[in-house]
Amino acid sequence: MEARALIERKREGGRITPAEWRSLMNRYAAGEVPDYQMAALAMAIFFRGLDRDEIVALTNAMLESGSTLDLDHLPVARIDKHSTGGVGDKVSLVLAPLVAACGVVVPMMSGRGLGHTGGTLDKLESIPGFRTDLTLAAATAQLERLGCALIGQTREIAPADRKLYALRDATATVESIPLIAASIMSKKLAEGLTGLVLDVKRGSGAFLPDVERGLTLAKTMIELGVDHGVPVVALLTAMDRPLGRACGNALEVEESIMALRGEGPADLMTVTYALGAEMLLMGGAAADRDEARRRMEVAISSGTAAARFQQIIEAQGGDPRVVEDPSLLPQAAACELFVADRDGVIAQVEPRAVGRGITALGGGRTRVDDQIDPAVGFVITARPGDVVRAGDPLATVFARDDAGIAAGRRALEEAIRIGEEAEPPIPLVSHRVTEAGVEDYLAG
Amino acid sequence: MEARALIERKREGGRITPAEWRSLMNRYAAGEVPDYQMAALAMAIFFRGLDRDEIVALTNAMLESGSTLDLDHLPVARIDKHSTGGVGDKVSLVLAPLVAACGVVVPMMSGRGLGHTGGTLDKLESIPGFRTDLTLAAATAQLERLGCALIGQTREIAPADRKLYALRDATATVESIPLIAASIMSKKLAEGLTGLVLDVKRGSGAFLPDVERGLTLAKTMIELGVDHGVPVVALLTAMDRPLGRACGNALEVEESIMALRGEGPADLMTVTYALGAEMLLMGGAAADRDEARRRMEVAISSGTAAARFQQIIEAQGGDPRVVEDPSLLPQAAACELFVADRDGVIAQVEPRAVGRGITALGGGRTRVDDQIDPAVGFVITARPGDVVRAGDPLATVFARDDAGIAAGRRALEEAIRIGEEAEPPIPLVSHRVTEAGVEDYLAG
Repeated sequence: MEARALIERKREGGRITPAEWRSLMNRYAAGEVPDYQMAALAMAIFFRGLDRDEIVALTNAMLESGSTLDLDHLPVARIDKHSTGGVGDKVSLVLAPLVAACGVVVPMMSGRGLGHTGGTLDKLESIPGFRTDLTLAAATAQLERLGCALIGQTREIAPADRKLYALRDATATVESIPLIAASIMSKKLAEGLTGLVLDVKRGSGAFLPDVERGLTLAKTMIELGVDHGVPVVALLTAMDRPLGRACGNALEVEESIMALRGEGPADLMTVTYALGAEMLLMGGAAADRDEARRRMEVAISSGTAAARFQQIIEAQGGDPRVVEDPSLLPQAAACELFVADRDGVIAQVEPRAVGRGITALGGGRTRVDDQIDPAVGFVITARPGDVVRAGDPLATVFARDDAGIAAGRRALEEAIRIGEEAEPPIPLVSHRVTEAGVEDYLAG
Repeated sequence: MEARALIERKREGGRITPAEWRSLMNRYAAGEVPDYQMAALAMAIFFRGLDRDEIVALTNAMLESGSTLDLDHLPVARIDKHSTGGVGDKVSLVLAPLVAACGVVVPMMSGRGLGHTGGTLDKLESIPGFRTDLTLAAATAQLERLGCALIGQTREIAPADRKLYALRDATATVESIPLIAASIMSKKLAEGLTGLVLDVKRGSGAFLPDVERGLTLAKTMIELGVDHGVPVVALLTAMDRPLGRACGNALEVEESIMALRGEGPADLMTVTYALGAEMLLMGGAAADRDEARRRMEVAISSGTAAARFQQIIEAQGGDPRVVEDPSLLPQAAACELFVADRDGVIAQVEPRAVGRGITALGGGRTRVDDQIDPAVGFVITARPGDVVRAGDPLATVFARDDAGIAAGRRALEEAIRIGEEAEPPIPLVSHRVTEAGVEDYLAG
């Protein structure tokens, strides 16, 4: 069946069969179906959706377009965490070495910046020398040795998804639950996992701001996991403001290092511990949340978590000294304080405006092949609800030059709203979703 | 504004401003906006539409992306006809020389096959040597000399539209009224016309089968013409069955030649005369429809229309002898009669199935860059309402080889339905639409 006929059928609300999905995605991965046809199909899917069978078929088609990690010989649990993406969301950088230091293998495959949010790979690559393009063989060896590898989606893993993911970013077709679910699960199912924890962001900075859509995404991915025998647990977490203070690639690496050294901001630690506890529970490394939390606290206070990050950085070609001396990370040429222009209460720190600001500074992508500047970004100390006076520092802009400083200021003027009072923030962790259903989970 | 942001805005139902349209289409024409972004935008427009201001802005942006024909020095009216496309629709090939022979200049710029329908350029190029890629200067000189030029959209004319037209064909985004209207009018307004006659097809084989959508398209294009001082008249004509008997490139040229020689099928002549009368009236070459019809009949019976076609063919590098000897056109290697498999009434000759059959034979495109075989196709003599007996000939399949014959038979088995009775056919010409409104126009 010609791709055009499938696009037309989906456009009219019809179904694409599993055999058609398999053929289509194989031909797309092989370059026989052009990007422009896939872009039109993605937009038709945005409007028409996919039913459960189609999501399963698309996920399998993308999974089967490549190879998978075979980790069955490892005697321990392999658990990954995936976030739907947010601004300032550097949880992966803290969580992966931390959970590995607690004895659970973390084969973490991450993505690049998508839309207004950053990408873990971009952040990691701001560490001088750090390589995320390991082969599957090298990643397997590192997992055996260090219990953690922080890699990009290799050419071997779900190549059809890799192409589609980049294409969706450039064509405003990211915000589709079936496409998000199939993309995430096609990669995660290729990692040879025994369990997966999802961080589904909600609030204005999330791809799916609405909690109901977030729950739908969580349930969709849990179903896909069930179909493949991989248990999935999802936490819904807050993205109505940036997570932590640092927003920008190298700045977020620095904050992650501080977190692993026991000096992380409270909100980042709350989300990290909540997700980490699920990973330890799934991996059999703790009997309950309290024990999991204690194990992680010990890993941080004893220095083993930071040391594990250092080993991972060294194994992947990066400069391990950054863990002791974050000033070795790329530094912005220009920086400037951003202060309150009046008295009031911080009513909002709007993540999308912050994310767009990072892109305006050169630290994010507007096209698939854009190069990014790792050093630029913001450190935002103001939090919703803070009482401020005119002249109080709210944030610092890090930029290449004066023009960048000006662009960063404009973004913060849009992002940080000072008013009479703040809306109550979304709880940092609000829901926990498993195969059994949705339960409240109030933290933060 | 980045293309992605515009796609997202349109996806959410927002408007794109005239300045944004201009910049977007200029960058698209220059290759700075990739096809995959434009494909996603086209699909978003399919679902969200464009308001009148946006259609005007898109039309102007595409028009202004290139050059225009300057024919103001010609002392006579310049009228073109445009069809929304159908199966067996070779009206342009008959009408252009016929109307030119009656003293109205016809600067006709046509397209290639789009979706299941054929394209006038593909048909013309089945004439050995015929070139449709004239420069604007050569086309102007030919218009001065012969009153007619049959050309493709040159690189100079609306290049943004040329790219988008090909892209829409490959991405199932053809059937969008705003995109159809803007595409047609951006080209037609570049032709330096003093008037335009539209043939808006309706029925199952039309891009817009529904009469209401056809009327909406007609009104949209009439408004665009008004905005540019070019009067537009539209006729709604039948495309619930193929027009004429020949379906396929060279076969349709042959039938057009026969029509210019006075031996055209009745349905083809009815539609041709109806559209031609509008052109002669607009061009001031006749006082009323009856006079227009008589002038055209004389041009055919006297041989001047056929002679004019011969001159045009010769001027454009083609072999003019085809007008006297159509056997000089490309001939299919294999042909076979297709007969009724039972007694009954021809209930339907479904144009889309016929169109898909031409593509299956190699005579149509499924991708922008497909090569087509000009010789293949069908001559379908069966018409809805005909009473037939098992074994009666219904059509002839023209193909490259036995496999083609088999594919053609399958297409005809799907297209030609024999039943107990036929639905009453759509009138050949049912509505006439002008700036003043819609009037009934019953012909055929």
